Amino acid sequence: MLIKEAKAQNSKTIIDVKGVKIGSGKPIVIAGPCAVESEEQVFNAAKNLKNIGADILRGGCYKPRTSPYSFQGLEDQGIKFLFDAGKKYSIPVISEVITLEQLEFAYDYLDIIQIGSRNMYNYPLLKELGKFDKPVLLKRAFSATYEEWLLAAEYIINSGNEEVILCERGIRTFEVGTRNTLDITAVPYIKSKSNLPIIIDPSHASGLSEFVEPLSLSAIAVGADGLMIESHPNPKEALCDGRQSLNFDEFERLFNKVKKLSTVLEQL
Amino acid sequence: MLIKEAKAQNSKTIIDVKGVKIGSGKPIVIAGPCAVESEEQVFNAAKNLKNIGADILRGGCYKPRTSPYSFQGLEDQGIKFLFDAGKKYSIPVISEVITLEQLEFAYDYLDIIQIGSRNMYNYPLLKELGKFDKPVLLKRAFSATYEEWLLAAEYIINSGNEEVILCERGIRTFEVGTRNTLDITAVPYIKSKSNLPIIIDPSHASGLSEFVEPLSLSAIAVGADGLMIESHPNPKEALCDGRQSLNFDEFERLFNKVKKLSTVLEQL
Amino acid sequence: MLIKEAKAQNSKTIIDVKGVKIGSGKPIVIAGPCAVESEEQVFNAAKNLKNIGADILRGGCYKPRTSPYSFQGLEDQGIKFLFDAGKKYSIPVISEVITLEQLEFAYDYLDIIQIGSRNMYNYPLLKELGKFDKPVLLKRAFSATYEEWLLAAEYIINSGNEEVILCERGIRTFEVGTRNTLDITAVPYIKSKSNLPIIIDPSHASGLSEFVEPLSLSAIAVGADGLMIESHPNPKEALCDGRQSLNFDEFERLFNKVKKLSTVLEQL
Amino acid sequence: MLIKEAKAQNSKTIIDVKGVKIGSGKPIVIAGPCAVESEEQVFNAAKNLKNIGADILRGGCYKPRTSPYSFQGLEDQGIKFLFDAGKKYSIPVISEVITLEQLEFAYDYLDIIQIGSRNMYNYPLLKELGKFDKPVLLKRAFSATYEEWLLAAEYIINSGNEEVILCERGIRTFEVGTRNTLDITAVPYIKSKSNLPIIIDPSHASGLSEFVEPLSLSAIAVGADGLMIESHPNPKEALCDGRQSLNFDEFERLFNKVKKLSTVLEQL
Repeated sequence: MLIKEAKAQNSKTIIDVKGVKIGSGKPIVIAGPCAVESEEQVFNAAKNLKNIGADILRGGCYKPRTSPYSFQGLEDQGIKFLFDAGKKYSIPVISEVITLEQLEFAYDYLDIIQIGSRNMYNYPLLKELGKFDKPVLLKRAFSATYEEWLLAAEYIINSGNEEVILCERGIRTFEVGTRNTLDITAVPYIKSKSNLPIIIDPSHASGLSEFVEPLSLSAIAVGADGLMIESHPNPKEALCDGRQSLNFDEFERLFNKVKKLSTVLEQL
Repeated sequence: MLIKEAKAQNSKTIIDVKGVKIGSGKPIVIAGPCAVESEEQVFNAAKNLKNIGADILRGGCYKPRTSPYSFQGLEDQGIKFLFDAGKKYSIPVISEVITLEQLEFAYDYLDIIQIGSRNMYNYPLLKELGKFDKPVLLKRAFSATYEEWLLAAEYIINSGNEEVILCERGIRTFEVGTRNTLDITAVPYIKSKSNLPIIIDPSHASGLSEFVEPLSLSAIAVGADGLMIESHPNPKEALCDGRQSLNFDEFERLFNKVKKLSTVLEQL
Repeated sequence: MLIKEAKAQNSKTIIDVKGVKIGSGKPIVIAGPCAVESEEQVFNAAKNLKNIGADILRGGCYKPRTSPYSFQGLEDQGIKFLFDAGKKYSIPVISEVITLEQLEFAYDYLDIIQIGSRNMYNYPLLKELGKFDKPVLLKRAFSATYEEWLLAAEYIINSGNEEVILCERGIRTFEVGTRNTLDITAVPYIKSKSNLPIIIDPSHASGLSEFVEPLSLSAIAVGADGLMIESHPNPKEALCDGRQSLNFDEFERLFNKVKKLSTVLEQL
Repeated sequence: MLIKEAKAQNSKTIIDVKGVKIGSGKPIVIAGPCAVESEEQVFNAAKNLKNIGADILRGGCYKPRTSPYSFQGLEDQGIKFLFDAGKKYSIPVISEVITLEQLEFAYDYLDIIQIGSRNMYNYPLLKELGKFDKPVLLKRAFSATYEEWLLAAEYIINSGNEEVILCERGIRTFEVGTRNTLDITAVPYIKSKSNLPIIIDPSHASGLSEFVEPLSLSAIAVGADGLMIESHPNPKEALCDGRQSLNFDEFERLFNKVKKLSTVLEQL
């Protein structure tokens, strides 16, 4: 059912990922390292983050890096490590794919397929995703309008897959003090125009770990269906985006605040 | 004491406006119509908003309008109406001034002097404000960087007035679905770099009344020291910015949620 | 040879497309309809534009449209029409590809492969292009920094293909009076940092046919290596972007001015 | 006559400043240092720039600086130096004013009053300017839409002064490689909507002296009515914006190219 029709019928999409319900009214938390760096690292993350309470484990394997000389990810091997870690610690897993070949390989191993902001306009890839039956997390391109973003989701839905989760991860502005500018208004705007769940990625939005907690609380208060948080065993040694990653203690503090806040908000 | 020095000493500016403490940790709420339109209207607003619990009454009198053909405000007469309304209902008042002459006239009548986003770069006016002993609310220009904004505050402080409150009211981006884009990250960023209180104006940021409540909750959760909300007896008939104004019932609902949320946040 | 090395050696890339030299100091003109709509239309365009003096014929076949409900192009059939038209009127042809499959099909038919702004961050596709031996025209993503754009070119070069032409087609700003904002400074900036030719697309940049001529002259004067101009037999009936297309008379007037201006500039 | 009326009547405003005609079809060149630093410096600039052929001498005296700790200009004394230099070398002078008091003082000494980009929204100042009978050069605020800019001009015209020259000086974007982004499309856009002359300031737009010449040629080719160029006896020792200033040799080379180009363009 297309977005406008679904909205007209006041329908609301709730996506069930191995029992984790996204869009149900209770926000979920996705956490994990920017990149899967080794079997040990991702198992470490899975164990600790699951233990703290994270609902879904993230870990980048095919990394679309601005420079061809940056670390490009563990690719297929990383996907397997992520899958194994998720299996061992009973936590669903999500990772980004950039090509159809990756999608075909990773399909069996992932619970949610992530499309990164650089591929929001990659319509052939979106059309292919519509033929698969796994939920898709569609990040907003960093200069996409709300309307373009919803139309990108429509490419997937129109091809047959209605399970789309939107993720706001910061837009590009003139501000140089932060990596991007979190557009918190995306949440109520998208909810006013669509039936799809929307989550927030405060890690990429700010690029600075010290802002992740306040921005997360802000996202929950505005009504987001969840968060995607970068958390790494040792942020200072991360191969990718360490500056915006929380260690597990920081993540735990954030997680507990988020849970309390979300309980309170239900009663407001 | 300049911003860097104050920050270095871990000092935090708390501003007392007739007993309303801004920057104390408990968020305050400024509310009122975009423009003072008549004595009756502003008295009506003062009575209702004070009754609901608003801390400070706003009302524009000298309106800097994009077009010379738009309603330009009641000017001096409006300031007097606002003052009288505040006095009658025991609520401090704030209004914007655009020139030194207006500042000199309005000084006796206002509890807080507002500098609007169009005048954030009006350094001569900022320097003059530094010579007065009333608190200043300094709105961010809609394309100012954080650093420029803090330096504008420094113009006031450096001229002798340390009581500056910052107000984020949305930045200009490529997005056309909303009036501006609320930059919620301004709150933790400014707090990380300065000792000044910072509040959020979700009415101008979004331009759409239906988004004012979720954005307000978001602002409180991120740690803002307060809100500035447009509320009008009859938004549909407002002479200015009616589309973003709440009626008193809507404001009351928002106000109560904000108060509950802020109580909870203290305990997180 | 990578960009920095080439620049360090003061090398300058000149690309020869069937005798049309791009980057030689004499600006070239690419022209044609936004989309190939029919055999007749593209033959009509080829005949007229070649006759006027255009160096290369453009025509979109795989159209990456914001909405899944918009006309998506004639695809493979369009590529063949374009090829036939180019062959008949002895004019090299360029068209955009979005996927590897399209690239493989179109390779035999095209003289230059175009990567559109939506795919500038599609690194897997860029890497594949590096394995082919046809020139690539790489459009700037509409919010890409200069550095990101050059790094995208580096993805192609680093994979083995040094024949990259850059194309500035307007960036996204707050301005609503035009489709995009032409960033003319891209030309001297890119020339100061790289050895690659750079051309300007004033049609997409402005979105308004009446601005295409002055912007074209501006591009030539700033030192661009060429122009990409949308021209259609009947802009009012174009299936795509008619508002920014010139008819053949308008194109001829522009073309003649461009040629005269470029001759003069050599002597300044 | 207001802009729309003038445009409807196909009227075109030509402004005569001591014989220098702005908006006549022949572009004029304003040149001089960012700031008047001393009597010697401004006399040196006046002599050399007049000798090369500059039409009008610029020099900032009341400097609106982002930081209160930066050099703020020689103020009234600077205005007198500028006046004396202009008188001695028979070249009209322009300088920026920020307050009504400055305007009243400077009125007798200046041939054109400049309003800087930070004051484009300073409507009270614009209204005052409307009461004076000297031409006004109105710079675009760095994030103003075309419409806001024209409405700012309308504030001046509506108050009685029809002699307004617009000046595009770069807009604020996400790009960090240059100071601002020159919006060259402003020229044809403004000409399509108004009767007012428009000039380009490539010095502030790029912030980099090596781009001033190509951007100047670009501005002339797009149809600008003139240029405003920063030129300083010794850019490396300039108290303000030296990085974007040309020395006199560089200015002379640029000036000669501009003159030749503008002659050619008349014949295209």
